[in-house]
Parts: sequence; C-alpha cells; structure tokens
Amino acid sequence: MLDRTIWWESDEVVAVIDQTKLPHETAVARWATVDDAARGISSMQVRGAPLIGVAAAHGMALAMLADPTDLDRPSRTLVATRPTAVNLTWAVRVVGDALRPLTPEERRGAARALASRLADEDAAACRSIGEHGVERLLATRRGADRPLQVLTHCNAGRLACVEWGTATSPIYVAHERGIAVHVWVSETRPRNQGAALTAWELVDRGVAHTLVVDNAAGHLLRSGLVDAVIVGADRIAANGDVANKIGTSLKALAAHEHGVPFLVAAPWSTVDPACPEGDSIPIEERDPDEVLRVNGAPIAPSATPARNWGFDITPARLVDGYVTERGVLTAAELAAELSRSGLG
Amino acid sequence: MLDRTIWWESDEVVAVIDQTKLPHETAVARWATVDDAARGISSMQVRGAPLIGVAAAHGMALAMLADPTDLDRPSRTLVATRPTAVNLTWAVRVVGDALRPLTPEERRGAARALASRLADEDAAACRSIGEHGVERLLATRRGADRPLQVLTHCNAGRLACVEWGTATSPIYVAHERGIAVHVWVSETRPRNQGAALTAWELVDRGVAHTLVVDNAAGHLLRSGLVDAVIVGADRIAANGDVANKIGTSLKALAAHEHGVPFLVAAPWSTVDPACPEGDSIPIEERDPDEVLRVNGAPIAPSATPARNWGFDITPARLVDGYVTERGVLTAAELAAELSRSGLG
Repeated sequence: MLDRTIWWESDEVVAVIDQTKLPHETAVARWATVDDAARGISSMQVRGAPLIGVAAAHGMALAMLADPTDLDRPSRTLVATRPTAVNLTWAVRVVGDALRPLTPEERRGAARALASRLADEDAAACRSIGEHGVERLLATRRGADRPLQVLTHCNAGRLACVEWGTATSPIYVAHERGIAVHVWVSETRPRNQGAALTAWELVDRGVAHTLVVDNAAGHLLRSGLVDAVIVGADRIAANGDVANKIGTSLKALAAHEHGVPFLVAAPWSTVDPACPEGDSIPIEERDPDEVLRVNGAPIAPSATPARNWGFDITPARLVDGYVTERGVLTAAELAAELSRSGLG
Repeated sequence: MLDRTIWWESDEVVAVIDQTKLPHETAVARWATVDDAARGISSMQVRGAPLIGVAAAHGMALAMLADPTDLDRPSRTLVATRPTAVNLTWAVRVVGDALRPLTPEERRGAARALASRLADEDAAACRSIGEHGVERLLATRRGADRPLQVLTHCNAGRLACVEWGTATSPIYVAHERGIAVHVWVSETRPRNQGAALTAWELVDRGVAHTLVVDNAAGHLLRSGLVDAVIVGADRIAANGDVANKIGTSLKALAAHEHGVPFLVAAPWSTVDPACPEGDSIPIEERDPDEVLRVNGAPIAPSATPARNWGFDITPARLVDGYVTERGVLTAAELAAELSRSGLG
C-alpha cells in the first residue's frame, strides 16, 4: 500500500503510481526528464487536477536538472498537456515565479524542494478537506441504522492528489474514525476512472462500496439510497460554477431534484479568480477512440463517429457546499473569501 | 438494407436480423420450428418489447405447420423464453385465442396470416408515431442553418420493432422527406444498445449521427447542440410517469434545465391504465456482470461488487410530449385519452 501517488525515487528521478495500469496492476512509472513528465500527464499516468499540478512542478524540477537556464520551454510543454485543469497552469507559474530570480545553479535544488513542498501542501490541504467534509457528510445522514451513503463520480480520490484525495478525503476520515460508510461509485465513462481508480482505492483502503453505471444516478437518488453526492473539481469559477468530469452536472441535477446535498470538494487553488463563470472555462475535447473502444474492442459500427468532451459545467445554483481546506463554503462565502484574498 | 426485422422467407421459414451479431456483422437467422423461435428470443437474436411479441406470434405459426393440433406446448415454450416481457404473453394469447376455434387444417394458414398481420400493425403504429413526431421535432428546430439535432438514448429503434421503431421513427420520416437531421446517440451502458444497435440502424439508413457517452448529455444540452430529446418507453403510468432504460431520467432533467423539449415515443399499448404512477412500476435488477465487464473483460477490481438496475422513472412533469399513433399528447391529454377509452 503506497501512501503517496508521486515521490522522488532519487535526486534525479520522479516516481508515480502509473494509473493507466490500474485496477489490475499496481505499477510505478519513472520520469527522468520534463518530456517524460509531459507524456506522463498527457497519457494520464497521473491525472486529477491537484496531482497534475504537483506533477507539473516535478516536471519543472526535472527540466531544471537538465537545463536550469530555460524556464520557458518546459513551462510551455507542461501547460500544453491538459487545457482544462487550472492547477497545471497555476503550478507551472508558481515554480516559474520562484525560480526566475535565482541563478541557474540555485534553481536545481530550489525546484526540487519546491515540488516536494507543493506535494506536502496538497496532502495537508486534502487532509483538511477531509476533516471539514466529514462533519458536513455526517449532517446529511438520513438514518443511524444504515451506513452513511455517499455517491461520487470519477476519481477525485487520493489517486487524483498526492494523498487522501478531495471528494474521497471525508470518506477516508470517516472510515478512520470508525463511522460506517458506503460509497456508490459511478463508473465514469469513457475512461472508467470510477470503476478502475475509485473502486481500486476503496478496495485498497477497505471501504465498503458498490459500482454502478453513470446512468444509475437518477434511480439511486430517487430511491433514497444516497445521503450526499460529493465530487471533485477541475476548476471553480469565481461565481461558483464548477468544471468537473463529464457527467457531473447530471448528478448535480438529480441530487437537486431529490433534495440530496451536492458537495464539491477541492483545494482552494482550484478556484480561479480570473474566471468569472462556467461559460469562460474551456472544455477539453479528447480522442473519440476513448468512446468508440472499450478495452481495445470497438463497441459501435466502424462508420460511426464519436465526440468526447472531458468535462461539463455544473452551475453554482446546484452546489450545496464547496468543501475546501478553508472550510465548507457556500457560493456567496466563496465569493467573499475571494474578495478577502484581494483576488475577487 | 433489410426493411423489416422479421419476415417470412418462404411459407415455412421465418427470417430475422440476428441482433446478437450487431453491430459488426449483419446476419440473418432462420427459424423453421417453434424451438428455433424460442431459442432466438431467449438468446436475444430479437429483442425489444414490440418485436418480441411479433416474433412469438411467428413462433406459434411455425408450431402450427408442424402440429396444428397442439396449441399448449408451443405457447408454454414461447412464454418461458423472456418471462418479464408483457408483449410476449399478450401475443401468444392473441394467437391462441384466434386459433382455438379453428380446425387444425385451418390453423396453418390462419396462424401465418395472423403473425403477418401483427407485424403489419406494429409497423403501421410505428410509422404513425413517425409522422406525428416529425412535426413536433421540426417545431423544436433552433436554426434553419443546421440539421435538426436530436438526442436519443438506448435503442427504441426499428430493431426493437418490426420497422421504423418508436423514438427513431420521426427521425426516419424526416430523413425520408429530405430534412437534414443529425442524431446524438447515447451509448447506453451497461449493454450499449445505443452504440451497438441505434448506431448500426443509423449507419444502415444513412442518417448522420455521432456517438457520445451517457455522461455527455449535460454538456450537449447546455451547449445548445440539441433541439430535442426523444426516447422510447417500457411502460407509461396513467399519470404520465415513464419507465425507460436506466439513465433516461437524467436526460429528462438536463433537457428541462436547458429548456429543450423531452419527448417519449411509444405505441399506445405502452400506456398502462392499471399503473397509477411511476412508483408503482417495479424496476428490474439485472446481473451485476453487465456492469463489471465490457466485452468480457473486467473494468473494476475483482473485489468490487456492482448493482445493475435496468430502468428508471422519469416523472411526467419532465415530459413535454408523448408521441403515439394517436398523436403527440401532453400528460393531461394522455389522461383524458385514457378516460375516453373507459380505462382511466
């Protein structure tokens, strides 16, 4: 059982859990160059907004080991890998800003230290999200005679972060405290991160769970089988609109329809003050083959084309709480917090 | 291009499109005996409630060719194939009632004629659904500068019927009239009837279409890429609540959220006057392996359990029109029509 998803295996090699091999094999991938890191991010060896940011910082550190005079090329290479996640751009900028004033020689050690610090900060933020979130989840519980019933989508788990996860962190904290909890895992077509990653995590940590197709959310919520829905976020606009894995908005609508709290768990860095609302967030479109093939085999006629958007927008109106390391906020409180930070 | 899904290839042989081979191969299966028909129905060479009923009637006709003195054994054999399909029992009863007063010699020709008549009646009802539906679809069109954009779920197509289909019938009628139409096909996990069957039908008829994952409906509707959503129904309660393939209710919620008409296309026989509302409709739960495996390969850890409900309930409030052979009705008009029939 590996505690973290990314770590320095030596002073010059970054190791990650290779998520493309899950759930059937727990493999470690190794990156020695920024191009390894960029390929690892774009091929989704690592994925999940917080982990992508930390991984990009590690990629910058690898770039500095090779050529500490050039900040621009590795920044561009890394930012180009995944357009929707704000954490990626944010992490590359943080590293760039920190390194620019330094001499090339200083940059090598500083970049590595900074990447490690961002990893530690992410783990701490996620733990804090878990501690705030568990209280909110417990408040949603419908009956003491059954486990807390949580529905999640995609993988906003520890595999999406350095440790703990965002949407899963309150679940792990509950489990750690001995609170009975059961997770409905939405498979999350087309890449099945729910089936492959969230289920793997929950098996790994011994948390009770059941896999369902994405289509099942309406039935589960209508039938009273869910106390709360909790998902992650790839980007949160200043007005509280949320970009997250395609299908998230359908779960939010169903939760709203049936009066079940819909929570978005994310580190504060996911909030993008430069982005006024959901419609300003670009939606990544991915390879249609992810839709047309499952496990390599075609599921449709060869003449059928497909489109494959990776994310959708959930309007702030449907979000009952933003679970962050600063507490569980409403959209209004999120805006106030942005103003207080002088960024709103 | 085959017009129908079932037909008499000779006076003694029934031919069907073998749907177990779709979408990769268009094969015809031939039935010479009632046991061939029973095996064909239970192995899902033919599926879809209307088609199963018509297929069973053809099976009865084959039985009469072999032994016109025995109505009971073939009836029992056919009814046992798919015990939950109401159309199957209905069709076997209709044929049995019609043949019982006849002499064995008369039964041979009468059974074949009745099977053909049930096929013709299904095709006519579906054609009528198409003619009523196309007018309603055209009224939803957002711009003359692009094709009519229709989203559908599962397969309420000609493969589920004898010809035309229910949800697809207005699409085929539009195509026949030279109206540009493009269909967003929702893959429909877990059995992927959208990807395998609806996409195949649309390729076969040359109708423009694009496959998307079930999760994509929120993004498509929010982005203005859909003029109308049209689906079939397994049962319509007297109050207009609709039981249909799992995931249907999520599309209805998203359509409602974005002001896009949500239409349910079904023959009048789908309306169940004995069923007051959606909550009275039992939801079939199927084998979890349909969720846990795709094309035979596991998508989740071996320790992960799954649940697999086949249908969900869409409340009448979210349905903008019931497209039937009696016209396009609102829920109130549906109730009035039930009362007029003396069945409300």
